[in-house]
Amino acid sequence: MTTQSTPTINHISAIVKLDNLSNSLDFVENLGKTVINGLELTVVKRIDHKFEPVGRTLVYILSESHLAIHTWPEFSILHIDLVSCKNTTVFDFDKVLASALKELKVIDYKSEFHRI
Amino acid sequence: MTTQSTPTINHISAIVKLDNLSNSLDFVENLGKTVINGLELTVVKRIDHKFEPVGRTLVYILSESHLAIHTWPEFSILHIDLVSCKNTTVFDFDKVLASALKELKVIDYKSEFHRI
Repeated sequence: MTTQSTPTINHISAIVKLDNLSNSLDFVENLGKTVINGLELTVVKRIDHKFEPVGRTLVYILSESHLAIHTWPEFSILHIDLVSCKNTTVFDFDKVLASALKELKVIDYKSEFHRI
Repeated sequence: MTTQSTPTINHISAIVKLDNLSNSLDFVENLGKTVINGLELTVVKRIDHKFEPVGRTLVYILSESHLAIHTWPEFSILHIDLVSCKNTTVFDFDKVLASALKELKVIDYKSEFHRI
């Protein structure tokens, strides 16, 4: 499925363990905005949900596909999932995410890239 | 990141080339519902967007994470992206998607599974 008659679909995801992960909407929203601005992506719509007792999901529909952020404060774990047709996002993702997390204490970080 | 102090995050995606892909919301909505019901996932919220001139994105926030469907009718391409904490989705995804597409003419199909 790599002919010119198909779109390029990049999938990039990261799992991050933080010291003291916030359960607030502001936290995931600021993180999302920093990643989106840093990767020069274009938001067309957004939706969020607060899970009980803890946990947030924030999803942006982008012109370039979508970005989803999930938090599990009970594990201090954050998951970021970007599907994008824009190839530069692959090279810049880790750098932009590191910048977005620079004020926080990162205990563990893993990211992966796949192109389907 | 595989200790018991982290959630299991399965990522499954498929790219499908169809003969004559519909640009309608009903089409992606029915596809999404069939996949969600077949995999016994739980929807908490949904959002969709119609791109101009063609293309649809539909995203469901799930109790188990999220499902996103993107269409590129100009390429007759459909992309389905499931992030799920429920491990059975990994085994059942292809079967459920094949069932959801059974009335359509599938020209090409590729799916991938990753666990981060």
